[in-house]
Amino acid sequence: MPASSTVATAETSLTILGGGLVGSLLALYMARRGFPVQVLERRPDPRLAGPIEGRSINLALSDRGWRALEGVGIAEEIRQVGIPMYGRVMHDQQGRLTSQPYGAKDQAIYSVSRAGLNRTLLDLVEQQPGVAVRFEQQCLNVDVRNRRLELRDVPTDTVYEQQYSRLFGADGAYSAVRGALQKTDRFDYSQSYLEYGYKELNIAAGPAGSWQLEKHALHIWPRGQYMMIALPNLDGTFTCTLFFPYEGPHSFAALQTPAQVEFFFQEVFPDAAPLMPELTEDFFQNPTGSLVTVRCFPWSYQDSVLLLGDAAHAIVPFYGQGMNAGFEDCTILHQLLGEQDHDWQAVFDTFERQRKPNTDAMAEMAVYNFEEMRDRVADPRFLLQKKIESKISAQYPDQWVPLYPQVTFSHTPYAEAWADGQRQDQIMARLMPHIHSEADYDQPEVQALVAREMAAL
Amino acid sequence: MPASSTVATAETSLTILGGGLVGSLLALYMARRGFPVQVLERRPDPRLAGPIEGRSINLALSDRGWRALEGVGIAEEIRQVGIPMYGRVMHDQQGRLTSQPYGAKDQAIYSVSRAGLNRTLLDLVEQQPGVAVRFEQQCLNVDVRNRRLELRDVPTDTVYEQQYSRLFGADGAYSAVRGALQKTDRFDYSQSYLEYGYKELNIAAGPAGSWQLEKHALHIWPRGQYMMIALPNLDGTFTCTLFFPYEGPHSFAALQTPAQVEFFFQEVFPDAAPLMPELTEDFFQNPTGSLVTVRCFPWSYQDSVLLLGDAAHAIVPFYGQGMNAGFEDCTILHQLLGEQDHDWQAVFDTFERQRKPNTDAMAEMAVYNFEEMRDRVADPRFLLQKKIESKISAQYPDQWVPLYPQVTFSHTPYAEAWADGQRQDQIMARLMPHIHSEADYDQPEVQALVAREMAAL
Repeated sequence: MPASSTVATAETSLTILGGGLVGSLLALYMARRGFPVQVLERRPDPRLAGPIEGRSINLALSDRGWRALEGVGIAEEIRQVGIPMYGRVMHDQQGRLTSQPYGAKDQAIYSVSRAGLNRTLLDLVEQQPGVAVRFEQQCLNVDVRNRRLELRDVPTDTVYEQQYSRLFGADGAYSAVRGALQKTDRFDYSQSYLEYGYKELNIAAGPAGSWQLEKHALHIWPRGQYMMIALPNLDGTFTCTLFFPYEGPHSFAALQTPAQVEFFFQEVFPDAAPLMPELTEDFFQNPTGSLVTVRCFPWSYQDSVLLLGDAAHAIVPFYGQGMNAGFEDCTILHQLLGEQDHDWQAVFDTFERQRKPNTDAMAEMAVYNFEEMRDRVADPRFLLQKKIESKISAQYPDQWVPLYPQVTFSHTPYAEAWADGQRQDQIMARLMPHIHSEADYDQPEVQALVAREMAAL
Repeated sequence: MPASSTVATAETSLTILGGGLVGSLLALYMARRGFPVQVLERRPDPRLAGPIEGRSINLALSDRGWRALEGVGIAEEIRQVGIPMYGRVMHDQQGRLTSQPYGAKDQAIYSVSRAGLNRTLLDLVEQQPGVAVRFEQQCLNVDVRNRRLELRDVPTDTVYEQQYSRLFGADGAYSAVRGALQKTDRFDYSQSYLEYGYKELNIAAGPAGSWQLEKHALHIWPRGQYMMIALPNLDGTFTCTLFFPYEGPHSFAALQTPAQVEFFFQEVFPDAAPLMPELTEDFFQNPTGSLVTVRCFPWSYQDSVLLLGDAAHAIVPFYGQGMNAGFEDCTILHQLLGEQDHDWQAVFDTFERQRKPNTDAMAEMAVYNFEEMRDRVADPRFLLQKKIESKISAQYPDQWVPLYPQVTFSHTPYAEAWADGQRQDQIMARLMPHIHSEADYDQPEVQALVAREMAAL
């Protein structure tokens, strides 16, 4: 590790800042296209961390993510350690359950461990010729005009500089690369926080590693102004996330003692609380995370810098699309490089122009889905509407793919899916006043209304 | 100047970053309340710069700005060197003129020199006991948790640290203080650029320092997708600003040679071009400025940091309210300090909560006025509508103050003015289909319609 010196890199070599999910997947794609790749990651190698970390934080992989993993041939390996979730199970305040499938019978999203997925990707990256990964390299500054990184080697606390010929910012929601672009002229940027934070909690495994709730579902405890969700882990536990206001009568600010937390959970999550033996420890030891949406434009600087993943478009987690959108960035970049014969300037221009409206739409849908999950899924009229939508979709499969499956189980650009979803919402607003039960759907007058809407679509 | 050392300051002392218009006015207000004040300014003392600089960049002072200057007793002094502008004069492509008053007969906005105003404020600040101003002190970093500034003394290139007990960020649209707040958790932030840049140009004085256009007006050459404006200076010149797209058929990108610029100006600004002997030099020597709107929240960090002026709410210049809004910040802060007996935490909380909706509204109006100035003021129907609004306002003075005078000549909070303006727009949209000339206003059926609208207001 040369300290305080400048290392010149070859013209064709690529530097990726960030060795998380998107950075390591991108490294695989680029190395397989024949580029020398260097990955610089701020944190220590996650494969050297203990097994504890593997339990928490899971993600929902869906079709866009799978396609990106297929592109580098690792989808099957990951699928082995994922748990398919075929729908939502809603828990009401009396502990009663309602189910709602996500799509067709065999369509599922997969609960996977973020750390496990990252480790698998890093193993592949290290086996790939032409890629070098360096951990514990903190980016202090990016001089985009002179293509120069200022880095700190964390173990030795040594600051040094390094030239790059092409830099990919896959360094997440608080991207240092984006921070540098923000200081160039005419860079549009916004970071916007929800008034909600989140807290990770846990549901314990049952006897012999069994699951104490339905394993193949994403569980939701919708409570109007807040909610808890739970995703299954392989060891029989569930990782829960409480999405909760920072301030107000039911809020983080209002729960200050273990007794208050216990009482609150027994009151509002009565079926979950008994399954959470470490509730108060988790609640007070785990940090409260904040929920940010980041938008910016452009994503590139000339032909030398490109942002991808959360660095370009961090979204709130309520559609389970953050990682999937970042992975799709890799698929699309890979495809454009082929189409445009590695003309980087053209590729970057096309990429950001094509991709930006889609990630903007995804950002809106993610906030919208928060409202749906915490609030509307508890409403019988909303559940009836979802059932009617399924019937329409079954009757007119070519014309009507509901929003959730379109986002989750298709590769339709997000902006098109969102436009479709908004049209469908308008149609449902016209139809639902005529429908009071599932059976009403088969009434001739309702069928006529639906047929008319379909003809106008 | 102690280098690389830490200077402890008294508990009550205030540090103001930025010695521009808002920073120096704030220093005056605070020093007169009895606080020891230190002002740190990045640039050299503008009073030591040559007279050239004084010619360019002028501002339109209006009532909110005047009130703030009155509060420190310098309004009359500034008014002596300001030029009242009683309305807009529009220049069409054939050189024909149309006038439009800004308000009542004696209501005017004042063209003043930014540099001259800044120099006057700095003179007062230096005469004020208890204030120290230090120029050429560049802020490199703000550690808000430890109340510590990292500064660079520019002439000696020496980096040093300094504690503060209370810090005011009056350091403009690219505020270093805001940059530090942006890194704290849950700080909402956006910077958004127009697709337009601006270029400062000049209209020469006539013989013996006379004005070659009407002196007491703001001149506009509205051309649909772009426009030029001109404000009078004391020396007979006018400072022009061309607001022009970066890209497209008529744009900065399309004008690459002096011949192209000459041809374009003679074509689209035929009455102005002959008055601009230095046009092509100015065009290619002056930088192209960008137009940004900055929004953020919160504006404070605990009771130790507060943003004001452009640092909190930079807006585009089309309503002439940027400086006026920053000055109004000083008036309101001063007032809250009196009301809340110097409880800084309470003052900061109230200030940002009360002020933010108003500056957000002002930001929207500034963009809206751009569209009006470049496009609608050239439309005869729009001009007729403005005349009808004046008649309504004259007939119902207590119920109808048009938006422009309400923003410019009143102290009504911006958000209230904007809400009023939007209601008035809706009313005019209902009335105008019934009105085809000024005389129509006196028709009984139109009078009846107006009376009905006023009764419902």
